[in-house]
Amino acid sequence: MSKNTTIQKENFSSWYTDIVTKAGLADYGPVKGTMVIMPYGFELWDLVKNVLDKMIKETGHVNAYFPIFIPKSYLAKEAEHIDGFAKECAVVTHTRLKSDHNGDINVDPSSRLEEEVIVRPTSETIIWSMYKKWIQSYRDLPLLINQWANVVRWEMRTRLFLRTSEFLWQEGHTAHATAEEAEEETLKILDLYKCLAEDYLAMPVLTGLKTEAEKFAGAKKTYCIEAMMGDKKALQAGTSHNLGQNFAKAFGVTFQNDKNEEELVFATSWGVSTRLVGAIIMTHGDENGLRLPPKIAPIQVVVVPIFKDEDQKKAIKSFIMNQIQDLKNENIRIYEDWSDRRPGSKFNHWELKGVPIRIEIGQRDILNEELVLYRRDKNEKSNIKIDDFVNIVKKTLRDIQTNLFLEAKNFQVKNTHNVKNFDEFKTVIENEGGFIKCGWDGTSETESRIKELTKATIRVIPFEQDIDQLKCIYSNKKAKYEVIFAKAY
Amino acid sequence: MSKNTTIQKENFSSWYTDIVTKAGLADYGPVKGTMVIMPYGFELWDLVKNVLDKMIKETGHVNAYFPIFIPKSYLAKEAEHIDGFAKECAVVTHTRLKSDHNGDINVDPSSRLEEEVIVRPTSETIIWSMYKKWIQSYRDLPLLINQWANVVRWEMRTRLFLRTSEFLWQEGHTAHATAEEAEEETLKILDLYKCLAEDYLAMPVLTGLKTEAEKFAGAKKTYCIEAMMGDKKALQAGTSHNLGQNFAKAFGVTFQNDKNEEELVFATSWGVSTRLVGAIIMTHGDENGLRLPPKIAPIQVVVVPIFKDEDQKKAIKSFIMNQIQDLKNENIRIYEDWSDRRPGSKFNHWELKGVPIRIEIGQRDILNEELVLYRRDKNEKSNIKIDDFVNIVKKTLRDIQTNLFLEAKNFQVKNTHNVKNFDEFKTVIENEGGFIKCGWDGTSETESRIKELTKATIRVIPFEQDIDQLKCIYSNKKAKYEVIFAKAY
Repeated sequence: MSKNTTIQKENFSSWYTDIVTKAGLADYGPVKGTMVIMPYGFELWDLVKNVLDKMIKETGHVNAYFPIFIPKSYLAKEAEHIDGFAKECAVVTHTRLKSDHNGDINVDPSSRLEEEVIVRPTSETIIWSMYKKWIQSYRDLPLLINQWANVVRWEMRTRLFLRTSEFLWQEGHTAHATAEEAEEETLKILDLYKCLAEDYLAMPVLTGLKTEAEKFAGAKKTYCIEAMMGDKKALQAGTSHNLGQNFAKAFGVTFQNDKNEEELVFATSWGVSTRLVGAIIMTHGDENGLRLPPKIAPIQVVVVPIFKDEDQKKAIKSFIMNQIQDLKNENIRIYEDWSDRRPGSKFNHWELKGVPIRIEIGQRDILNEELVLYRRDKNEKSNIKIDDFVNIVKKTLRDIQTNLFLEAKNFQVKNTHNVKNFDEFKTVIENEGGFIKCGWDGTSETESRIKELTKATIRVIPFEQDIDQLKCIYSNKKAKYEVIFAKAY
Repeated sequence: MSKNTTIQKENFSSWYTDIVTKAGLADYGPVKGTMVIMPYGFELWDLVKNVLDKMIKETGHVNAYFPIFIPKSYLAKEAEHIDGFAKECAVVTHTRLKSDHNGDINVDPSSRLEEEVIVRPTSETIIWSMYKKWIQSYRDLPLLINQWANVVRWEMRTRLFLRTSEFLWQEGHTAHATAEEAEEETLKILDLYKCLAEDYLAMPVLTGLKTEAEKFAGAKKTYCIEAMMGDKKALQAGTSHNLGQNFAKAFGVTFQNDKNEEELVFATSWGVSTRLVGAIIMTHGDENGLRLPPKIAPIQVVVVPIFKDEDQKKAIKSFIMNQIQDLKNENIRIYEDWSDRRPGSKFNHWELKGVPIRIEIGQRDILNEELVLYRRDKNEKSNIKIDDFVNIVKKTLRDIQTNLFLEAKNFQVKNTHNVKNFDEFKTVIENEGGFIKCGWDGTSETESRIKELTKATIRVIPFEQDIDQLKCIYSNKKAKYEVIFAKAY
């Protein structure tokens, strides 16, 4: 890793940007707010995507694709929805360019659209306009559709993967005959997201409900998975919305129930985005770069042979060849770095890229029938016998996956505080950071006052509630909920 | 299939739209020119995509993602390029909406962008603006990047999958140190496309060069795969461009070669799109609907049990259960239709959807230890023994794949004409349609005159040329090329 990288503890934000760009995950695009996802970052996203896509399909959903362009009037049909997105809409107004007499290229004024179209910030409105055509009877329900797509929310303060004008995501949009089914679906998806985060990204999450102030524009209820990053700030990593009948009402989507009565359809929507890549970096990264959980690492094992000439190279190749093939046969993602760079430079390079296991092989190792296994998560080397190689690699990948989760879980627990009063609340938020678990009286006044005073927001109202005797940390009234406060991305 | 479907021979165009919508492949979006890809159509596209993605990766390319927004000035940097795309650009001019005093939602004039951004019609310009940052030395080359993305080319005359304002595609963009390498890459990709079309989509293609008039805006040379549809019109199904140094020049992308000299980088780009779904429909479809090649069929085998009550249902289930599991274990995509619709209605439904094999099982079949296998390609039924079931299904899927290709190949050969003079040329184009193989003097005058008179264009200049003694079909001068003329989509 090059010496001019920012120290993580000193400036987490610069450290993050350094890592993202130096590890070849992403770069800035020419239009303000846009991001290029570079090949290594894209492969990481693709692995996350494949895991989730499989889960989504196994729970009975199918993929489809809806247009990126939404008529302005459609977006405006649900009042809370348009309020939430109006300030970040990319608006298409014209459809042609032409050159003027100087040869400059300008927008052709005669190509002005009668109704402007919006580049989708999310697809509820366009999808429910189609569901109106597709849904007639209870036999058409449930309709369980997901789409993988790009969306645009205009943004001036860019942060790669976390806050960009365009990002990639999946958005599920389901239609149901009853309120109960919609609620069940919303919670089922929340479970998938938790499983994706914890079992694959090795990122512990809290789950529960968002407050009215923090919920999705147009939702009845928003559930979320909320994670703690390495700087102890919170990151909303995925949301699942019960939309009630709001969008069905806005688009007039009714169905004939089994008693031949017209009823409004119940809806859910839910999404996770390329923001998860940012979450992986900020949960596991250290001074030397990324530390990727094996299950989603583009390269799980890198082999770094140490040689001075072609003969030594050949000797290493024949020493390790069969074992590498064995690992490949078991679908382990393994890369052999036979380039001519110095070994030290290769070590740094692959540590920066977060490859979970590095194998080093020199001439002496061949004589000893050994090799060196380096674990990126613990920054530890050990000698292993060539005969044990395949089994130890497989076991170590599992160990690293577990260890990264436990490290992050311990970090989250250690940095979740109980506080006695609002003075302590302020001190903790300001000095230590992390999550604060405390009582809240349930009013939006208290919520917004605390935000003004401390910049901390209610990240989640956990499912498990113990409010007996609990008082609101700010108003001292009887608590309505026990909640998690934190500063957030 | 419902009776009100258009007859293919009478009106191919209406037949096509009927099939696309009734088989659940696509629907029209609310903004003119846009398309919704419905779940069955999307799964078909996804299977095509997965095959090609594997080929692209196996030839050393990696995926990445570039922003959808291109600054207007970037698009204008390559003169031919902007000329080609200026008339179909979606232009983003504003970034906010606001409600006026009546509560109407309008574009906020104060959010006007200083420089308009264009929704990508293709990504050469934005990608080469990034390559300028990423390429310094010959060691950075070749750079072999592909992206799967949506692109927008504003369109008023919609035809689902064939001509829509937004479509999905892959676009490869590679950078090379020499002209030879770029040419080699261009041809290598053309080969992948031919393999995808012929070996997977069962669609025979002609390959070769496009004329200057038909080439990509900004390319030095465009190679293509060109197919014949069921109405004998030509469809450009994929293109691979050698861009020479045009985009490197426009964006100042140079590299230091191994002699320490600055040189401009050589480029290629290449793409296929959701248009391929249209091509599959129009190559293989018949009066009863789709006929899908097994390799890319979302459902390869549908099982239609014929039963009157629960006992019969159970009997069929236990009769066929193990065999179905065997097929699933071999990754055959099989679907069991246990719904309560009449068998005849199920047969029509699955024929419309183009499922290659249908299995019918009634009570008598159980007694005879038999079942009925229906081949969608030949519209033929046969009885097979339950013990042979798995093997015969696997063999029949291979047979159908081969047969669909041969049928289409014979059709193409039968409808490729040699003509003696331009009068015959006109008669054939007007009455019979199909491809005409003939001499061309190589001038754009002749090419455009023939287009004016007959609407036929030069679809491809095939690689194999035999111009000895050959005369131009229009000017009667010595032919420079032997070419394929046809009316095209």
